Amino acid sequence: MANEEIKTLGGSWAMVGGDGPSSYAQNSNYQREMADAAKGMIHGEIIEKLDFNDPHFNSSNTFRIADFGCSAGPNTFFSVKNIIEAVDHKYNTQLHNPPPLEFQVFFNDVVANDFNTLFNTLPSFQKYFAAGVPGSFYGRLFPKSTLHIAYSSQALHWLSKVPKEVVDSKSPAWNKGSILCSGTSKEVAKAYSAQFKNDIDTFLNARAQEIVGGGLMVIIIAGLPDGILMSETGAGMIYEFLGSCLIDMAKLGVVSKEKVDSFNLPLYYSSAKELEEIIRSNGHFCIERMDKLNPRMLVKKLNVEFAVSQFRAVFQGVLEEHFGRDQDALEKIFQHFAKKFADNYYSIFNGIRHQHIDFFILLKHNIN
Amino acid sequence: MANEEIKTLGGSWAMVGGDGPSSYAQNSNYQREMADAAKGMIHGEIIEKLDFNDPHFNSSNTFRIADFGCSAGPNTFFSVKNIIEAVDHKYNTQLHNPPPLEFQVFFNDVVANDFNTLFNTLPSFQKYFAAGVPGSFYGRLFPKSTLHIAYSSQALHWLSKVPKEVVDSKSPAWNKGSILCSGTSKEVAKAYSAQFKNDIDTFLNARAQEIVGGGLMVIIIAGLPDGILMSETGAGMIYEFLGSCLIDMAKLGVVSKEKVDSFNLPLYYSSAKELEEIIRSNGHFCIERMDKLNPRMLVKKLNVEFAVSQFRAVFQGVLEEHFGRDQDALEKIFQHFAKKFADNYYSIFNGIRHQHIDFFILLKHNIN
Repeated sequence: MANEEIKTLGGSWAMVGGDGPSSYAQNSNYQREMADAAKGMIHGEIIEKLDFNDPHFNSSNTFRIADFGCSAGPNTFFSVKNIIEAVDHKYNTQLHNPPPLEFQVFFNDVVANDFNTLFNTLPSFQKYFAAGVPGSFYGRLFPKSTLHIAYSSQALHWLSKVPKEVVDSKSPAWNKGSILCSGTSKEVAKAYSAQFKNDIDTFLNARAQEIVGGGLMVIIIAGLPDGILMSETGAGMIYEFLGSCLIDMAKLGVVSKEKVDSFNLPLYYSSAKELEEIIRSNGHFCIERMDKLNPRMLVKKLNVEFAVSQFRAVFQGVLEEHFGRDQDALEKIFQHFAKKFADNYYSIFNGIRHQHIDFFILLKHNIN
Repeated sequence: MANEEIKTLGGSWAMVGGDGPSSYAQNSNYQREMADAAKGMIHGEIIEKLDFNDPHFNSSNTFRIADFGCSAGPNTFFSVKNIIEAVDHKYNTQLHNPPPLEFQVFFNDVVANDFNTLFNTLPSFQKYFAAGVPGSFYGRLFPKSTLHIAYSSQALHWLSKVPKEVVDSKSPAWNKGSILCSGTSKEVAKAYSAQFKNDIDTFLNARAQEIVGGGLMVIIIAGLPDGILMSETGAGMIYEFLGSCLIDMAKLGVVSKEKVDSFNLPLYYSSAKELEEIIRSNGHFCIERMDKLNPRMLVKKLNVEFAVSQFRAVFQGVLEEHFGRDQDALEKIFQHFAKKFADNYYSIFNGIRHQHIDFFILLKHNIN
């Protein structure tokens, strides 16, 4: 590294900051249900798979955990606490009277993330030394072999960028009239899939450098059931709905038509098979478990206002990045979205035949 | 640690955030001159005193540096770059074809510090992995034996709190009519001195846990020449000047008289002898060097507006904490301060017979 330089990669958008009524911190109930649903699995897997007798593992009494894509809380604190309790239990049962273990926890997200809110809402008493790490996880963020457990929830289905072909009117993969990879166009799906493969590969390569041999990685990521298209799921319908709102807004002159045409969501929901193949061909990690999580919220009919505020806390940033920080325009977009959502409430919830899946994946870093 | 809990200590005030015209980031020229003046000393001392053949030292290829009290930049980036260049040079000359060294840099300040601005202004390309660590340095912030070089500039003359006796009207150490330890009252000086000793001791004990044996610590701290009182220095005069402004403001009803009476600056400038004694009696570190820094700004007559904005960037936070975040009142206080400063410009700069000293101290952690 002496002559190399590290670039602080970093998307220019993030979840809505602060801890006010429109913040992600106050509008991440779905993500919290996910963390709840995963709690038992994480605990059990750590107890079973973490091995303190592994010589690669136990070189010091510092145990380092990183959350990749932590956002501004509070879910990250819940998950970290859960991980630490399991690690501590395993450590004290596997070893005989070991010296006390010290935990260092790194909260990572893009530079645009609201770290001030994250730090201000850190639990006043915690069993770890906390640090924030700014930068994109699609690049190196830590020195070699310094992490023991990596965690990433609801983050890796966000691509590092929108594949350029899908917004290029001269490409066969031009995604005209749509803002997402609905799955109905093979060319569009191919472009999104290639970007996803490239991103996950980059992520795994970076983490393989940073995680000790025998170290674990928990990934929670949105995906699709086998053979189901994005457009056939509830999530896909809501994204398409946002797309139709943007087209309406262009007609009303709130945003420009060109801006709408060049907008696509940097999101990709893959199948279990596709994801497994990427991880296997990458080769740095063994898949110890791949499972489904079933948060209860998906099966509930949601209150419109609640659903819209949850959606906005996640999607406002990506819209701002593309359409600019014009708060007037954003307000109009989301007001229209809320109205259309309310007007079509019945058909939306009765039209859903499929749900996307949230995958729970446990990886173990191969001993180098 | 398994059953212990770490408290995120943290003052509720910090330097003025953001990177706008009134921010600390834009008003820290004095501190930058200090870093400039220290640059050569730091480089030379690291080359001479850092020993990669020390067995305590070289257990991995990760080299960890922490800046305690980094504020929101940009001086911290300058100092860190300077340290890394020296370490890298020593590493590559002392060892024969060593594996590349990876640097991890921790930027520490209180929770109220503007870490968002710090992260947003990180150099885009740097030779280190960056992390922010929120919390007071008068407590543990890192796992045991994980830091190689600690750095703290212009931070340790800020006490963890105002000694309670000095604002207690029933105490012989009551500092009536003054907001600082001017040195003229022995009882007040004793209370401040005891708090300072306690804080430095706490700081050194925490760092002794965190820094590897043979690790270095650079401290830049404001102090006094032997036998000179705070009230006899330019800095002391300016602080007393702020105190007289607060009394004027109380008379005008902008702030309450009780609030002014109960306000003291949590600042203490010690003599070299006093500081040396604290470090020696603590015993965890050897004093490798103790020297004076002489930034050029102290001998220049400053433009009033410039001087006031530099002063405000540092002191606004501590006033807000005590008097509340009433922007109207703060504006009036600093306008009055600026006016009084301009009116008394000649007498201020000609009345100064002494200057405070900025000490440069290099410590080496004793091998345990």
